Amino acid sequence: MEVIVLKEGYCREGEKKGSFKASGTITVVKGEHHNILVDTGNPWDTGELLSELSKANLEIKDIHYVVCTHGHSDHVGNLNIFLQSTHIVGHDIAYKDNYEDIAFKEGEPYEIEDNIEVISTPGHMHHDISVVVKNTKHGTVVIAGDLFECEKDLDDSTIWKEKSEDKELQEQSRQRVLEIADYIIPGHGPGFKVPKPS
Amino acid sequence: MEVIVLKEGYCREGEKKGSFKASGTITVVKGEHHNILVDTGNPWDTGELLSELSKANLEIKDIHYVVCTHGHSDHVGNLNIFLQSTHIVGHDIAYKDNYEDIAFKEGEPYEIEDNIEVISTPGHMHHDISVVVKNTKHGTVVIAGDLFECEKDLDDSTIWKEKSEDKELQEQSRQRVLEIADYIIPGHGPGFKVPKPS
Repeated sequence: MEVIVLKEGYCREGEKKGSFKASGTITVVKGEHHNILVDTGNPWDTGELLSELSKANLEIKDIHYVVCTHGHSDHVGNLNIFLQSTHIVGHDIAYKDNYEDIAFKEGEPYEIEDNIEVISTPGHMHHDISVVVKNTKHGTVVIAGDLFECEKDLDDSTIWKEKSEDKELQEQSRQRVLEIADYIIPGHGPGFKVPKPS
Repeated sequence: MEVIVLKEGYCREGEKKGSFKASGTITVVKGEHHNILVDTGNPWDTGELLSELSKANLEIKDIHYVVCTHGHSDHVGNLNIFLQSTHIVGHDIAYKDNYEDIAFKEGEPYEIEDNIEVISTPGHMHHDISVVVKNTKHGTVVIAGDLFECEKDLDDSTIWKEKSEDKELQEQSRQRVLEIADYIIPGHGPGFKVPKPS
């Protein structure tokens, strides 16, 4: 199992008061039988996404699943490049105009293969999902979208609460992911090791 | 003010039990000073979107705003075609990685020009928005995304409630739109006149 960050997301203050500059992390998972692109960046990230994918020795046709952790514009900007892939966007699973029946709402994971599953982790938005990858060099990696904005939000909850649709729900999802993950790839910062009680 | 439906959305049962076939309505508004694309269809709609835009005598560079009523995959599928436009996706307003401060959450409309504004209409998702266009041949038109699935959902509330993140909130948004609109363009069916008390 290999997890490669194609573009590291960020979020910082903008030039105008109240504005900000942001872009979502783009990640690819090379599984045993499937390649999964997790989040597609913003609509202006097309060139960088394709170039980084190529550096990871992957072509568009090699991507079996495109998973968008949630429906914000800096995560869903490049869906239409991957027309041979199954798309999982939040709680929706689709190929072309065919939508599968959804198990996420009942709390069931969606298993892509033995060591890769998609789980519902609501709170930032109500339909947020995360991708869980076991047996990597970092142990169990969770690609969590904006459930975690960045490592710093472990100590400063104002960072994630400011952008949360449901803080209580998000807190529950965060605790669940902190329990199962050894390493987290957040939506707007570098990946980090999960602190464990010694 | 001219409102042109480029592709009429639909939602019907799929072949497999529990599955469904769906696509979101794509609309363009020709205002006095701005052209606004409302929803971009699913990722496989690119060709049809561009062809219909051309029939409406518009090129990509003529679109000043792309508004996605919400972040479901059949509405945000083609954002990366419109790289000269300001993007409003749910409550987010962005150009490239620059995000404006957001007034939607405080209930303020975003005015594009005198007769065109974007308003917050949450419920289907928590960040749903609608585009209000005054002085059209149909009177005040509201392009409402999935706040209304189709005309039939006026009489059969199970249609919209089944896909709602917050039914109570959506009911309030629906009532508000029914009061201001003469004509509604829903997410998954033809436009319809709003029934008014005689």
